[in-house]
Amino acid sequence: MSVQIRSAAEGDDAAIVRIILPTIRAGETYALDRDLSDADALLYWTGADRKTYVAEQDGAVLGTYYLRANQAGGGAHVANCGFMTDAAAAGRGIARAMGTHALDQARARGFTAMQFNFVVSTNIRAVRLWESLGFGVVGRLPGAFRHPRLGYVDALVMFRTL
Amino acid sequence: MSVQIRSAAEGDDAAIVRIILPTIRAGETYALDRDLSDADALLYWTGADRKTYVAEQDGAVLGTYYLRANQAGGGAHVANCGFMTDAAAAGRGIARAMGTHALDQARARGFTAMQFNFVVSTNIRAVRLWESLGFGVVGRLPGAFRHPRLGYVDALVMFRTL
Repeated sequence: MSVQIRSAAEGDDAAIVRIILPTIRAGETYALDRDLSDADALLYWTGADRKTYVAEQDGAVLGTYYLRANQAGGGAHVANCGFMTDAAAAGRGIARAMGTHALDQARARGFTAMQFNFVVSTNIRAVRLWESLGFGVVGRLPGAFRHPRLGYVDALVMFRTL
Repeated sequence: MSVQIRSAAEGDDAAIVRIILPTIRAGETYALDRDLSDADALLYWTGADRKTYVAEQDGAVLGTYYLRANQAGGGAHVANCGFMTDAAAAGRGIARAMGTHALDQARARGFTAMQFNFVVSTNIRAVRLWESLGFGVVGRLPGAFRHPRLGYVDALVMFRTL
């Protein structure tokens, strides 16, 4: 099934919260407060400094990502994104479709590189996906993430030019 | 001359702005909007998510730094700092004194590591200082900083355990 990706609208708020909350609560892949309220989680994901997209399959919103500048000033040519997929929809190509879309959007907006600041090293699925989309590991942060089950694990900085 | 370091108070606002504005305007070492207003620059440096300190020598405020958690959630055990010194006071040990102070403060607050996310590689003085204080380069972000005179230069991720 094909994946449609479009800008998020206000009507997508509930779907976005439904997707991102379980990942935030699990605390295994994002360095975010696990107890973030629904409202604060949505505020984070759709903040004024970023553009938020949703991915649909067969009319259902099953993924979401944001795109922003990773830094201001002299660092504003490097994009940054966050991606989350409905856990129940894993393996259906949604994350990959969003990744490809994000690279295109970033190029279209004039970014010349993309950086992920904090890919949890035990999130093998994500690491492999980003590597397959041309990202390389440019940094390893030793023990920088406290995984709720695995304890202190490394986080990776991943980067690619556009 | 010895350097005294203390928590910043409201009365330090003018001194902090006087120190940080020229560095922000120059745009050579921090990935911040060079046109940030005085008020926004101060807001950034003294934000609610960080604790801000000032360094005095002979009664004059000549440096300032902030300390915060680098990430939330599973990344909240790693500290992050920003440091700026009055350009006219360079070479007087103020940055080094602040760095040492920051490591002590971070330890006292329970952080177990410190990370600098974006040390501009051409800021040799800073790179050498952090290396002498036990930081290692754990990542290199290729061309991630557009230096106003030198063009695209690398930025470094520096890290040390506490």
